[in-house]
Amino acid sequence: MRHLLSAADLSRDDALQLLETATAMHDVQHREVKKLPALRGRTVVNLFFEDSTRTRSSFEIAGKWLSADVINVSAKGSSVSKGESLRDTVMTVAAMGIDGLVIRHHASGAPQQVTQWVDAMVVNAGDGTHEHPTQALLDAYTMQTRLGDLDGRHVAIVGDLTHSRVVRSNLILLRTLGARVTLVAPPTLMPSGVGAWAAAEGFATSYDLDEVLPDADAVMMLRVQKERMSGGFFPTPREYTVGYGLTRERLARLAPHAVICHPGPMNRGLEITADAADSAQSLILDQVSAGVAVRMSVLYHLLGGSE
Amino acid sequence: MRHLLSAADLSRDDALQLLETATAMHDVQHREVKKLPALRGRTVVNLFFEDSTRTRSSFEIAGKWLSADVINVSAKGSSVSKGESLRDTVMTVAAMGIDGLVIRHHASGAPQQVTQWVDAMVVNAGDGTHEHPTQALLDAYTMQTRLGDLDGRHVAIVGDLTHSRVVRSNLILLRTLGARVTLVAPPTLMPSGVGAWAAAEGFATSYDLDEVLPDADAVMMLRVQKERMSGGFFPTPREYTVGYGLTRERLARLAPHAVICHPGPMNRGLEITADAADSAQSLILDQVSAGVAVRMSVLYHLLGGSE
Amino acid sequence: MRHLLSAADLSRDDALQLLETATAMHDVQHREVKKLPALRGRTVVNLFFEDSTRTRSSFEIAGKWLSADVINVSAKGSSVSKGESLRDTVMTVAAMGIDGLVIRHHASGAPQQVTQWVDAMVVNAGDGTHEHPTQALLDAYTMQTRLGDLDGRHVAIVGDLTHSRVVRSNLILLRTLGARVTLVAPPTLMPSGVGAWAAAEGFATSYDLDEVLPDADAVMMLRVQKERMSGGFFPTPREYTVGYGLTRERLARLAPHAVICHPGPMNRGLEITADAADSAQSLILDQVSAGVAVRMSVLYHLLGGSE
Repeated sequence: MRHLLSAADLSRDDALQLLETATAMHDVQHREVKKLPALRGRTVVNLFFEDSTRTRSSFEIAGKWLSADVINVSAKGSSVSKGESLRDTVMTVAAMGIDGLVIRHHASGAPQQVTQWVDAMVVNAGDGTHEHPTQALLDAYTMQTRLGDLDGRHVAIVGDLTHSRVVRSNLILLRTLGARVTLVAPPTLMPSGVGAWAAAEGFATSYDLDEVLPDADAVMMLRVQKERMSGGFFPTPREYTVGYGLTRERLARLAPHAVICHPGPMNRGLEITADAADSAQSLILDQVSAGVAVRMSVLYHLLGGSE
Repeated sequence: MRHLLSAADLSRDDALQLLETATAMHDVQHREVKKLPALRGRTVVNLFFEDSTRTRSSFEIAGKWLSADVINVSAKGSSVSKGESLRDTVMTVAAMGIDGLVIRHHASGAPQQVTQWVDAMVVNAGDGTHEHPTQALLDAYTMQTRLGDLDGRHVAIVGDLTHSRVVRSNLILLRTLGARVTLVAPPTLMPSGVGAWAAAEGFATSYDLDEVLPDADAVMMLRVQKERMSGGFFPTPREYTVGYGLTRERLARLAPHAVICHPGPMNRGLEITADAADSAQSLILDQVSAGVAVRMSVLYHLLGGSE
Repeated sequence: MRHLLSAADLSRDDALQLLETATAMHDVQHREVKKLPALRGRTVVNLFFEDSTRTRSSFEIAGKWLSADVINVSAKGSSVSKGESLRDTVMTVAAMGIDGLVIRHHASGAPQQVTQWVDAMVVNAGDGTHEHPTQALLDAYTMQTRLGDLDGRHVAIVGDLTHSRVVRSNLILLRTLGARVTLVAPPTLMPSGVGAWAAAEGFATSYDLDEVLPDADAVMMLRVQKERMSGGFFPTPREYTVGYGLTRERLARLAPHAVICHPGPMNRGLEITADAADSAQSLILDQVSAGVAVRMSVLYHLLGGSE
């Protein structure tokens, strides 16, 4: 594995190995002295064309705990705003002699494109509405800690399927790991293209969360983009909560062993209520913690080299 | 001591111990190799909901000289702007596995609140108009270097008592250290609430700087918020300087041993003139230097752990 | 050498020594473990009053590879915006106990001024339209790798001579190294002051790129500020390309051994076309790589101290 661009880059063995290393990294994370020498003298640039404090910080911490030098480059105020092309920006950053490039970009496919231009290893930290593979890995890691092997498990992914970069990566990785997935959304947020693709790929779809819930081992609630719900849009936020929110009532209908995930930041009271978000079944903060461990694992495997 | 939220958290012994450690740290600061291994493998996040380059840089340098990993998180462009609550933001940052959280927030009491939600140790780096305890410590440290023990010393704090987060922390700490304080301000910047509180707490107040000055061992000039002096506000900037500025004339009336402090950034020509700011009695740059030493001391005591 | 403010600070021996150390640093840059202990325990602040991701990142990487602590301070959102003077800002940063200050400022002469106020060593990372000495060093370094000793070589600098901070530093350093320089620009971008200065200093000037090109060993294309070409300005972007762009046709007329430089970011299709920028004669990415090595060399010489 040279890069991590898509969950589809990962064979089942690759994925299991990354998750196993993440377990070891998670132990380091809970030590008093959180520092491994593994990537000493390696340099990772976080090149973010979109703001994402949460993802950027997680990669920064992961790199530093592995003793790498981490440089944050935000596209705000950079050469990008002077009209430089993505290609020139990326080749310039790479020419400084860095080892790894963690890229967040608003255009789907940008990180894949970048690998054509540079020698550095590239991690996709979210490209448009396309993929966010380390998010899928941390979701899988977190669910595993409670559910064990995901093979044969049933995961419901609920929400805005059109605009989420998390969905595709999760679908691919969960299938690789043997899980069964049902996509749940109101018709307006599950466009025919997504529905057709999901059907062709063998994923179940549903407009009815209440039907799907009792059978789920894990329910992954996606963030709703409130700003897209203006005008005469259906559903309104209130309608969304009634039809698709993880409310106290729906929490009661979850299987006792089932777990709740959310990639954050949450809209409390919209797609998820406090009862669900803060319940014993919620793994939402565990996901954040797993994020650092998973990113340590990814950086370690991609950059660890011969040491 | 688990956190540093308020100067009131510090007993006299705590304060003296922090100041003594700061003296040792100050020595490190003047070495060629400024690096102690004390906090290697510990991670400190500077979580700033308001800009403050000066305070943020001081904490960043303090953490790095103790070998900690330091991560800067600005609320600008972060999840906060996506409507996430303070609680969710803070719990998310903490869940990454960090050890310390240095918080600057516009709401008084926010850092105290945060300690209810996270296990990390919390340092208040300024909350609204409430407290800024490391500023009070660095002020005390600086005055001590010139005046010796502050017990029985007389400190005049002059300026905008309504909007300064520095005043309350200084009052509390100076009293803990045995100093006598007089608050000096025009009536419009010493609201009845503040006056009553000060009186109840036993601090002297005055509207007349010229009366207070000759008896002071230290005079602490506060920054005036020029933007609050618009409209028909009294005093105008010119009137303020005449009545409350530390001018050349007033400098001449200071006791020869008395020292001048200012938390910065200064409005030269408004609350303080160049004669005073750059005089041999001014400790304004010493305060900046002491800031790093004091923050090293605080981080060391809170995070030093069992090593 | 205490500071690096201007290319004029460098004697021929100084320049050659910096370039020789840069060669050693360039080797480190290509190792798997890019880390030298030379500046461990030294602190460098990148104090940028103007955005420049490229220059800031290059200095940050250079400092980190030498094991220095590097602190980025942007004037955006800093005390500067609260009306603090440059002097107070700089003295405050220096008072924290730092060793080096890398300054980018919009005012010509600012870094020189700063050395009057602080003990830290100062590197000019670009001041107004005045100088950018590390850029001149990296240009010289890059040309040397292909052309060998620059003594007697002929360098054409082409473009906006009025607004480029790179020109002056390059002229001075190239003369110090024995190279011959011709300045090429349309009359509107070579104001009489520049022309007169260049003539007085013994540099050739020309309005005719095609005449100069065949005789050049190196051609350095400057970035055009498109925003300055509005209104009835001559040349328009199209006219500029026709008269002064490094196009495919002009590339063909370059001597086979001649090299192409550009400080970046490029306006592809304006001052340089893709044929030229990506040709085998282009050293544009080598310049970026050399930038880190040269800055390591500069920091090492200025801060290396007694170790």
